[in-house]
Amino acid sequence: MSKKNYFIGVDFGGTSIRAGVVDRKGQVLGFEKRKTQAELGTDVVFERLAVAIERAMRAADVKAKDIGGIGIGVPGPVDQERGVVRVMVNLGKGWTNYPLADRLARRVGLPAWLENDVRVGALGEYHHGAGQGLSDMVAVFVGTGIGGGIILNGELRTGFRGGAGEVGHTVVNGDDGVTGATGQPGTVEGMAGRAGLERQIKEAIAAGQKSVVPDLMQSVGSGRLTSRVIVEALKVGDVPMQKALANAQLALGRCAGNLMNVLDPEMIVFGGGVTARLGDRFVAPIRKIAQEHYVAKSEARRIKIVPGALKDLAGVVGASVAARKYL
Amino acid sequence: MSKKNYFIGVDFGGTSIRAGVVDRKGQVLGFEKRKTQAELGTDVVFERLAVAIERAMRAADVKAKDIGGIGIGVPGPVDQERGVVRVMVNLGKGWTNYPLADRLARRVGLPAWLENDVRVGALGEYHHGAGQGLSDMVAVFVGTGIGGGIILNGELRTGFRGGAGEVGHTVVNGDDGVTGATGQPGTVEGMAGRAGLERQIKEAIAAGQKSVVPDLMQSVGSGRLTSRVIVEALKVGDVPMQKALANAQLALGRCAGNLMNVLDPEMIVFGGGVTARLGDRFVAPIRKIAQEHYVAKSEARRIKIVPGALKDLAGVVGASVAARKYL
Repeated sequence: MSKKNYFIGVDFGGTSIRAGVVDRKGQVLGFEKRKTQAELGTDVVFERLAVAIERAMRAADVKAKDIGGIGIGVPGPVDQERGVVRVMVNLGKGWTNYPLADRLARRVGLPAWLENDVRVGALGEYHHGAGQGLSDMVAVFVGTGIGGGIILNGELRTGFRGGAGEVGHTVVNGDDGVTGATGQPGTVEGMAGRAGLERQIKEAIAAGQKSVVPDLMQSVGSGRLTSRVIVEALKVGDVPMQKALANAQLALGRCAGNLMNVLDPEMIVFGGGVTARLGDRFVAPIRKIAQEHYVAKSEARRIKIVPGALKDLAGVVGASVAARKYL
Repeated sequence: MSKKNYFIGVDFGGTSIRAGVVDRKGQVLGFEKRKTQAELGTDVVFERLAVAIERAMRAADVKAKDIGGIGIGVPGPVDQERGVVRVMVNLGKGWTNYPLADRLARRVGLPAWLENDVRVGALGEYHHGAGQGLSDMVAVFVGTGIGGGIILNGELRTGFRGGAGEVGHTVVNGDDGVTGATGQPGTVEGMAGRAGLERQIKEAIAAGQKSVVPDLMQSVGSGRLTSRVIVEALKVGDVPMQKALANAQLALGRCAGNLMNVLDPEMIVFGGGVTARLGDRFVAPIRKIAQEHYVAKSEARRIKIVPGALKDLAGVVGASVAARKYL
């Protein structure tokens, strides 16, 4: 565990790169956000990443010698021993087995540590967000995919093969016809992930319902069903969007109930773009459904189900925690 | 942790009481099994329990001074600090808040420790059965109800409120109409618990199918759908029983797949009466379904899904482990 006072946290996503210089209290002292532009290839994206870090350092006005290293949350599995990205589906094939930690360390002059983005977000919420001071916490991040970070007795549960926390691929409605990434019907991600929401809206439109979602996807979503598109559609009372979101909340509520029954954690934190924008408006129905599914009815309210406190900064803050803990 | 060489393990069930004197290697040196006769009330049952322990001690031919204490697995939640049974639904209201540890210690002259029966079974399989030498293991016991014991990094996960491991109440088929004990549709127990199996068979008979199950329940099951009844019905190719079992295996396979995706354990062990009688014939279809639901297809076989090794003795051996660890 590094004794330096500052750490850089990077949230390396398919759409944007966020970099921040973070102190030991989780305060972000300097910050830079850039588009990823994954379509330009690994060399360009790597350079954009490095420049984002340099700009965040300049903005923070902190000396490089006081920075303990760089933590990077990436959207995919990593080989931490070798500092290698195994695969990042949303960023293209060029990133398979990419030695990101070494290259970044050489480019920026600081040691670097890779971690999966969901786990980094969980670390952020646990150490500096909604879960501060607790022993156990499960974080569920809802976006294109749905992933979870499980913290038990203060430590991230990585699992026997390093695969723990794949809550999006759990089945909550097995006889339903919708299949997710595992090829199985009724997964949480199949209902509540971005592709699941889009499918439901397309079906509603095909069935003759009106929706502003396709127009919003073009005007504010760069062709995608971003969290901004979702929130704008809800603002104007778009019925297909409302129904798709309610179905997502049902799947997520069952998922949270299952996590309560299996793990009995102190808290389940929801994060991701939609949660960051809607807060408890998004989480309240999930909480209600989860509590209905909990076996010990009289104690269902003791397990807190809340929106994350760090919003869009969970990844940056959490990546800095990973650097602090593991470098 | 007691330094004695022998411990008594008691599996206190609604139908039968099993008591054994067990050494540190998990060998049962003396054993007694008696009917519980719960209908005769707490005083009679308590006396039957004490006599079972005394007979097991006599059979083992071990001196009382070499025995470290008594571990008792009970079918319900316990208050371990006070040694009190909170409630045992299957044994009657007289057992609510019953101070079993103290009374047994006074009656038998040895310290006693209570633990939930499912957790005791998990401890047995972990320390002396299928899970020996592993770091992580989840045990799922299938019987009247369905419960789980979760061992992570060698320790039993009890949970924030002491409620972890309630895998039977997780939802795997939320839009299905069948409700379980939580009042929610599509739970594992609602499909694969004893009441769920019985309901499916009754429905098949009501729909005009033939089944030997009702006769077997009278002749060998004392009116109940015991594991013996299930196995005898399968032997004669009873179609409603086969179909109900396949549905149970589907629900249990989804449940095991969910546990794999969330926890990534080294092993999932199935226990309980039907598993003890059918072994891998019962577990193989569960394993196949679980692996199909696992997100990392190429690695699905690395997580072992097996029948327990201790069969009907998991509770006795595990209760002795609890006494060894906690007294």
